Amino acid sequence: VKKVSIGILGATSYTGIELVRRLHSHPHADIAFASSQSYAGQKLSGVFPEVLGMWDGELVSPEQSAKQAGHVDCVFSCLPHAVSAQLCLPFIDKGVKVVDLSADFRIRDAAVYAAWYGAAHPRPALLSQAVFGLVEHYRTQIRTAQIVANPGCYPTSILLPLLPLVKAGVVDTRTIIADSKSGVSGAGRTLKLSSHFVEANENLSAYSVGHAHRHIPEIEQELSGAAGRAVTITFTPHLVPLNRGIFSTIYFAGPPAKQCEEIARAAYGSEPFVRVRASTDLPKIGFVAGTNYCDIAFAGGENGAPVIALCAIDNLLKGASGQAIQNMNVVFGFDETAGLS
Amino acid sequence: VKKVSIGILGATSYTGIELVRRLHSHPHADIAFASSQSYAGQKLSGVFPEVLGMWDGELVSPEQSAKQAGHVDCVFSCLPHAVSAQLCLPFIDKGVKVVDLSADFRIRDAAVYAAWYGAAHPRPALLSQAVFGLVEHYRTQIRTAQIVANPGCYPTSILLPLLPLVKAGVVDTRTIIADSKSGVSGAGRTLKLSSHFVEANENLSAYSVGHAHRHIPEIEQELSGAAGRAVTITFTPHLVPLNRGIFSTIYFAGPPAKQCEEIARAAYGSEPFVRVRASTDLPKIGFVAGTNYCDIAFAGGENGAPVIALCAIDNLLKGASGQAIQNMNVVFGFDETAGLS
Amino acid sequence: VKKVSIGILGATSYTGIELVRRLHSHPHADIAFASSQSYAGQKLSGVFPEVLGMWDGELVSPEQSAKQAGHVDCVFSCLPHAVSAQLCLPFIDKGVKVVDLSADFRIRDAAVYAAWYGAAHPRPALLSQAVFGLVEHYRTQIRTAQIVANPGCYPTSILLPLLPLVKAGVVDTRTIIADSKSGVSGAGRTLKLSSHFVEANENLSAYSVGHAHRHIPEIEQELSGAAGRAVTITFTPHLVPLNRGIFSTIYFAGPPAKQCEEIARAAYGSEPFVRVRASTDLPKIGFVAGTNYCDIAFAGGENGAPVIALCAIDNLLKGASGQAIQNMNVVFGFDETAGLS
Amino acid sequence: VKKVSIGILGATSYTGIELVRRLHSHPHADIAFASSQSYAGQKLSGVFPEVLGMWDGELVSPEQSAKQAGHVDCVFSCLPHAVSAQLCLPFIDKGVKVVDLSADFRIRDAAVYAAWYGAAHPRPALLSQAVFGLVEHYRTQIRTAQIVANPGCYPTSILLPLLPLVKAGVVDTRTIIADSKSGVSGAGRTLKLSSHFVEANENLSAYSVGHAHRHIPEIEQELSGAAGRAVTITFTPHLVPLNRGIFSTIYFAGPPAKQCEEIARAAYGSEPFVRVRASTDLPKIGFVAGTNYCDIAFAGGENGAPVIALCAIDNLLKGASGQAIQNMNVVFGFDETAGLS
Repeated sequence: VKKVSIGILGATSYTGIELVRRLHSHPHADIAFASSQSYAGQKLSGVFPEVLGMWDGELVSPEQSAKQAGHVDCVFSCLPHAVSAQLCLPFIDKGVKVVDLSADFRIRDAAVYAAWYGAAHPRPALLSQAVFGLVEHYRTQIRTAQIVANPGCYPTSILLPLLPLVKAGVVDTRTIIADSKSGVSGAGRTLKLSSHFVEANENLSAYSVGHAHRHIPEIEQELSGAAGRAVTITFTPHLVPLNRGIFSTIYFAGPPAKQCEEIARAAYGSEPFVRVRASTDLPKIGFVAGTNYCDIAFAGGENGAPVIALCAIDNLLKGASGQAIQNMNVVFGFDETAGLS
Repeated sequence: VKKVSIGILGATSYTGIELVRRLHSHPHADIAFASSQSYAGQKLSGVFPEVLGMWDGELVSPEQSAKQAGHVDCVFSCLPHAVSAQLCLPFIDKGVKVVDLSADFRIRDAAVYAAWYGAAHPRPALLSQAVFGLVEHYRTQIRTAQIVANPGCYPTSILLPLLPLVKAGVVDTRTIIADSKSGVSGAGRTLKLSSHFVEANENLSAYSVGHAHRHIPEIEQELSGAAGRAVTITFTPHLVPLNRGIFSTIYFAGPPAKQCEEIARAAYGSEPFVRVRASTDLPKIGFVAGTNYCDIAFAGGENGAPVIALCAIDNLLKGASGQAIQNMNVVFGFDETAGLS
Repeated sequence: VKKVSIGILGATSYTGIELVRRLHSHPHADIAFASSQSYAGQKLSGVFPEVLGMWDGELVSPEQSAKQAGHVDCVFSCLPHAVSAQLCLPFIDKGVKVVDLSADFRIRDAAVYAAWYGAAHPRPALLSQAVFGLVEHYRTQIRTAQIVANPGCYPTSILLPLLPLVKAGVVDTRTIIADSKSGVSGAGRTLKLSSHFVEANENLSAYSVGHAHRHIPEIEQELSGAAGRAVTITFTPHLVPLNRGIFSTIYFAGPPAKQCEEIARAAYGSEPFVRVRASTDLPKIGFVAGTNYCDIAFAGGENGAPVIALCAIDNLLKGASGQAIQNMNVVFGFDETAGLS
Repeated sequence: VKKVSIGILGATSYTGIELVRRLHSHPHADIAFASSQSYAGQKLSGVFPEVLGMWDGELVSPEQSAKQAGHVDCVFSCLPHAVSAQLCLPFIDKGVKVVDLSADFRIRDAAVYAAWYGAAHPRPALLSQAVFGLVEHYRTQIRTAQIVANPGCYPTSILLPLLPLVKAGVVDTRTIIADSKSGVSGAGRTLKLSSHFVEANENLSAYSVGHAHRHIPEIEQELSGAAGRAVTITFTPHLVPLNRGIFSTIYFAGPPAKQCEEIARAAYGSEPFVRVRASTDLPKIGFVAGTNYCDIAFAGGENGAPVIALCAIDNLLKGASGQAIQNMNVVFGFDETAGLS
């Protein structure tokens, strides 16, 4: 297999550096360039000394990166929403495959995008072309996609346990409550008080409570699509004092846990990265941290009590860069686990 | 004010040592003895070197402690359930005031106690005499109680936000879901793999999922009493990597958050240890760790969406030893904040 | 005892908020004002929600604070060096007692101050008046001081174990190496990448390695004074992933540990905040966190091997705000432990 | 390349599970069996649920494992010292290659072994055959070794920076002080109070202070060999609240840091797993955690001041299982980085 030539936009983020680490040991990928607004001109190992000896290239500016559009096969964008779509356009226009880790291609309805992200989409016509990169549910479409919208971290942890059940019609979709707990890397590398060590350590808090977090529209879009009716959820994210991982505890009216587990096993039995666990062997963040696994289990659902779905992922891998590489592997026809085991 | 003479049963637990620390600086209390099954005969500072210079007495065995029944005014029990009631009996029979931090006097129905705790109660007749020590709701009864059943940590964090609303009749009590997150000290000092540093650190898990945790009967007992009907809840506790603190996120069908906040402010406006916060100033564990405060806020409840109550306490203080001292202060007529500020 | 009226300059720092908490429960102190450059005009509880219900005053600007000079008995300054001395001058000129937590009054030689802090001192004449606030060694002078230079956190953890030995003449002062480990609160509340949770957590690093850290001149000044000759040390500070605490491991040529321990016990036997521990009961940060204690022990020193002195303090208490209150207690003749137990 | 067939003795330790994870993705290795005293008969994924989907074999008892001696090419032993050598003997006698992660083959002098480990060696004649598995210094001998004594974690972090300098004759070997800081996984998975989350978190302590830790004899053996004279060191290990990593700060009389750096670069320039860093780019545990790298830098050494060598490794990888696989790669002639990138 010939190696694909890769560009990384916004490489000096936690998701960017995770891509560099994983692509470094990927058998079919070569990093051609990595861009950074803040650190252009510096070596990546000057910003992230841990990559010394892995990939020591010099970071290019976003403007310079656009000139590389004709020389790469695939671009990953770790840029913030709004900026990301704009800077992906030169690559899209050259036919380069794009895996966008921002939200810019996740929402198919441009009005919904504008309402939640506070800005008009720079090229709304592309929204219907992009494929939502939840591999386990869109693998066929991803194979031929040019633009893959890599799902958000919280949505991945909520949709993977729910989608098979919603598709099977066993969930009362008016009752879904997702209580999610995320490690601090989910808040990114930008300095802010809530991510300051002394503030986050030995602490735990809820934020964007109610119906306020920007990951809501993509969760509701996918659940609505699967249900065939408009679904609204309650979602409370929490910040917990650990580096990596999301744990989602999801409540809804549905059938006994055993039945949910069977539906999930049927859906995911041959998936390399989804592990359905028994109710006696519940997911933990520690079991998935540093891996691309998504671990799922179910409890409750007896005698009218709510079902409790439990899901754990590494927010930087299955919730971001790992899933992005999984998408790239599908797009280029590689072994889906290449670079991820 | 004359000082009260205090005995501590089970002093070499996290709740016991917290009592020692706080009573050491309490203006009206003197520690007369402290007992320990495992460390009897040793100085307390040999087991907990941090108390060197605070209270350096020698630990007595449970058998020896019973001989002190005629010489103390008040006993705190930090013993495990089943053991606790048994070892409190000699003190109760001598008329000593007892604040029991175990579950042994919390459940008024002896059959319910036996079903959840797997053992018959050693003196069921006392169950109706004991007062549930949630000061903000039972202050009058506590003033004249001999036995105070100090509430569990999770129940404190769930009942304080819910009780005023349930009493006001605004909660659909068939819909209550409590998703709680606890620091590791809640699991005690007994060695077990889930509390091993390498296992708990950088990890997060749910346990006793569904309707399985032993704190459920006291939560349902108090909610049922307030509602005037049998209330069943869904409760999922989680273990999070921090030493101290519980954060409970509670979902239920009810009125808009603003109205909940007003009801809570009316109930707790003059309470020294309950802080009702605005929905723009949400609770965090960091705000209450090391204090006896319980911080509460509300969100949601608009357009039929669930209300989200948020509550944070320090599990070893307002959730255990701090609340126990608050109870002692009420029993003996001291300033309720003595030893707790 | 009449209460003293207190001003706090720079209250929205970790040392400032610690002062507010401790003075809130101090029997002889009232906070008259608290200043903040960044948050003037806001209530302190808007910046630090944890103080809600403790001290809810409005923060004043540095300029406004100067107008309070005639109305307070004592000022604590938590301002950065260089700024601190300047803003303390109006209070000093009015005869107000000043406890300065910055380095501005610690170095008696103005040229040394300028060399290490990169700025001329605003009022060098005051340097000889100020007393170094290491209570255990300067108690007599502090009683009558107007300006107390509260020692740095690292210096406190290095000087307390060494000074009695150096005074006793048993240390070869050419051989002193101090390897110190500090929690992240020592780096302050200002946002920087090294204090970002994801960077500091699960990490450990050395910084200002060699002879580079600004705490060196005050350590060498005090050791030189005690030794009667110029002393130069090697000092390596490390950043460790915990909120509060410093642990210093100090190596030097000297007598067997047992003899060092005896000298230290003789020096500190009646001190309320220094606990000399046996070599079988070594200091740990956990034993002193949240307290004003300094724990000390010794090992080694046999057969020509180096002595190893071990010292643990809470960097925000004995290393800053606790020691500052201890100094205030000495200055005003209060019980030295008031507000600190 | 034909795959080698691997046995793991003591697989349910942190080093054992790390071997399973890494061998799972090693291109030239197949796990044939894994043994466990405590969990024999269970599937490994029942003990470590994170390996579900990686290697789900059933654990065999130590007795059963011996029967496999004729069916494997290589055995890794993660057993405790004394037990390890005994259970390796059946494999050694069959000519199987053995990489022993215990101390049992590290000390060439049987009397020294007995003195430090409190037991006679079961087959002292093997001590002179075994090769000390510090690849960077014994690569040639490892290629033909049957028994490789994988170095201890602390020794790896102390010997790699020191050995090139000692061999170059620039270290005054009478002055070496090593102050090391280790994450809690270094203490193993056996339950003990010092590894209990609440005790280890927000804490830091020294242990085995002076000349007491069992890693001392192998450090002194290797330094003495390199120096050509008996070397005695001062070594203080510390426990820090993080899962993985060792940071050693080493002091000694020697030449300026720049010269040390040059000597180290000359020694390690082509090594795949040693990164010599500039004094402006110091090692951190975070840069090496999860990798097999050893990062080294130097400071000080000017004007008679001590040199300060700084070294960071992941204690479970370069300090244990990673180095063990590196040794296996050398023994079997594989790419030295196979399974480790």
